Amino acid sequence: MQLIHSLCLACLVSFTSVMAFSQLPDIRVNQQRIENRIFELANFGIDSTGKGYRVSYSSGYLEARAWLIDQMKQAGLEVSIDYAGNILGRRKGSDPSLKPIAFGSHIDMVPNGGNYDGCLGAISGLEVMQVLHENHIETNHPLELIITTDEEGSMVGSRSLAGNLILEDLNNTSHSGLTIREGLKVIGGDPDRIQSVARQKGDVAAFIELHIEQGRILETENIQIGIVKGIVGISIYDVTIEGVANHAGTTPMNLRQDALLAASKLILAIHEVINGHEGQQVGNVGKITVKPGAYNVIPEKVVLGMELRDLSYDKIMVMFKEIESKAAAIAASTGTSIAFKNKPPVVMPAASDTSIQNKIMEAATSLGYSYTFMPSGAGHDAQNMSLIAPMAMIFVPSVGGVSHSPKEFTKAVDMANGTNVLLHAILLLDKKE
Amino acid sequence: MQLIHSLCLACLVSFTSVMAFSQLPDIRVNQQRIENRIFELANFGIDSTGKGYRVSYSSGYLEARAWLIDQMKQAGLEVSIDYAGNILGRRKGSDPSLKPIAFGSHIDMVPNGGNYDGCLGAISGLEVMQVLHENHIETNHPLELIITTDEEGSMVGSRSLAGNLILEDLNNTSHSGLTIREGLKVIGGDPDRIQSVARQKGDVAAFIELHIEQGRILETENIQIGIVKGIVGISIYDVTIEGVANHAGTTPMNLRQDALLAASKLILAIHEVINGHEGQQVGNVGKITVKPGAYNVIPEKVVLGMELRDLSYDKIMVMFKEIESKAAAIAASTGTSIAFKNKPPVVMPAASDTSIQNKIMEAATSLGYSYTFMPSGAGHDAQNMSLIAPMAMIFVPSVGGVSHSPKEFTKAVDMANGTNVLLHAILLLDKKE
Repeated sequence: MQLIHSLCLACLVSFTSVMAFSQLPDIRVNQQRIENRIFELANFGIDSTGKGYRVSYSSGYLEARAWLIDQMKQAGLEVSIDYAGNILGRRKGSDPSLKPIAFGSHIDMVPNGGNYDGCLGAISGLEVMQVLHENHIETNHPLELIITTDEEGSMVGSRSLAGNLILEDLNNTSHSGLTIREGLKVIGGDPDRIQSVARQKGDVAAFIELHIEQGRILETENIQIGIVKGIVGISIYDVTIEGVANHAGTTPMNLRQDALLAASKLILAIHEVINGHEGQQVGNVGKITVKPGAYNVIPEKVVLGMELRDLSYDKIMVMFKEIESKAAAIAASTGTSIAFKNKPPVVMPAASDTSIQNKIMEAATSLGYSYTFMPSGAGHDAQNMSLIAPMAMIFVPSVGGVSHSPKEFTKAVDMANGTNVLLHAILLLDKKE
Repeated sequence: MQLIHSLCLACLVSFTSVMAFSQLPDIRVNQQRIENRIFELANFGIDSTGKGYRVSYSSGYLEARAWLIDQMKQAGLEVSIDYAGNILGRRKGSDPSLKPIAFGSHIDMVPNGGNYDGCLGAISGLEVMQVLHENHIETNHPLELIITTDEEGSMVGSRSLAGNLILEDLNNTSHSGLTIREGLKVIGGDPDRIQSVARQKGDVAAFIELHIEQGRILETENIQIGIVKGIVGISIYDVTIEGVANHAGTTPMNLRQDALLAASKLILAIHEVINGHEGQQVGNVGKITVKPGAYNVIPEKVVLGMELRDLSYDKIMVMFKEIESKAAAIAASTGTSIAFKNKPPVVMPAASDTSIQNKIMEAATSLGYSYTFMPSGAGHDAQNMSLIAPMAMIFVPSVGGVSHSPKEFTKAVDMANGTNVLLHAILLLDKKE
């Protein structure tokens, strides 16, 4: 179901459903400041060829963090770095009994990455804080801007907060060349005390992450705001198809056990299964190898890399069972064997909190933006945060759906729209019922 | 069309059609001697792990050649080595005006190869010569046993005889580590004078090669002798399918341009085209690569390696045009582009001489062996020899159709059957009409 509303702001007072909004301060974020900061942040970590390499723990990452911390302080925040290297910017609330409403994202990028993935969530969070500061608005809840560590690599920042860190991962080497353990020390964390940053359920009132869509749904359907129903679960499989190698010149077609022919039929069957269900599930066969791999030898062995994603783990399993069943029929008809091996970890779906989704919808409606409900097909820090707090995400359009690329681009107006929705959703959440 | 005859030898005299045979000497080859020599030859070029590495120009190849030359001399042949390293064993005929009837094969092997591919043609030729020698039979034509150089690599021996040598190929490195030029010197050839060994049309009365089938048709259909209608032509193509890479989690199924999905459809279409024609044509997609090749990225570019084989070049072209047409439809429906690039050289089909095929059929019939007409799906020296002489081939069953492997095996009785057919086909060809 997709709901698309585009309401005239001037008409809002006539809608009973949004009357509550009139009690909120009529403030807006500063679009130009958001855009300026996105460009300013983009200058950190550029290599000699002009490409962005602000990977975690690199010198560009360190410089960007220092700049951001300074900006956060200027916006009136009390800034600290926790043992996981997360930058925490706190703003007091009026009611000491309330837990913080948290929001934010990350400022590390993939090698040769873009300027919006993560950065928009960080800069928009800063903008929300600054607008409240400038307008001398005191919230009931404390507010907390969280800039997480190494989202594009280990997700060590949000995993540490959520208490689902795998300690062994600290020994993995990051894109910077340093191990995560070494990197954490460089940015002011402490790998030996990292587990103490874990928060308990109830410690955080809500967590909201604003992010570029990284897909083309909003752009294609010309919608301004995506309200994320949840972050999809992912099951990954290596699929091995084994036939019999033989001379491709001397073996009649009807005596072949061709692993690549069977694999081709299976790829089509996988797409049939995924497309055969109602909903927004996706799946991909992105890897394939063949042995022995010669023009004149009938393929003996093919290995495929497949993944399935959906908001419902049950649906992923239903699709997988259907694929297994079709594979058995293909194996029988082609004289091959087909075996599926699950590649851990299974990423479980993380559902967004319905109440926060409704606040986001209310904010978007009040501001006159069109919106739709959608899954996040990509992983985010928010999926870890959902383990300890009611979580939701806001998406804004990404031109061409491009991400993890220098071509990543989101229009300033869309960034401002998303930040306004974030601001007003926070204010709605903060209201005393 | 497949003709299968199994005639009782004792009944032959009652068949008018084979009465002519009664004028031929009633001699048979020595099965045990053939088998012994196959095993003896197999001892040359074995590595420390017991695997066969009698690649051209290696020490094992040299030793095997010396042994074979000795055996040929003992069988009464006048032996020489030409500038292409071919071993030529000649036996005089009674009519000095006649050109030689030639036969033979090669004794080099692929790395980790088997003991029958090529070797049977060499040993059977030697057996034919020896049986004639022992029985004091003088033929009208001179006979020539040709052991060709480097069939599994450059085919430099038969190419030199046929005058279709590509001189640049002499600089290529062979499996031995030596260049072909260097290797030729080691075995007694002379690369600088190699072109002078080329024979003209008419210099050779006929060329017959006995070979293991390297396929499973004879075994599957329980037939003793394959009469080769010709050696197939081969067209090889690299097929490039280009789509658009995208995040496999965030891109809805209906917005994808998936190069691997298109490639899978194309592979099925290629098989449909090949199987859609009457006849014994074959084709293969044996290679596939995908870029970028990640679980979570929609495939951007796939390259396939495809080949088509048939006795008719026209039929290969008809199939290719049909494949191109289906590819265009697949490209349109998947939002991809598909381009075919021919990979030279095109190997043109080489038809067997009908008259020699008939002599082989007559010999098989007379000897009481079942037979069928079939293409050779693999390449052989005989395809080069067809450029200068009427050519034909005799196949015998290969267990499991295995070749180019240590598991290659042909039963002694099948080797003897084939050699008897070779012997009697030569005698039939030799008869004065």
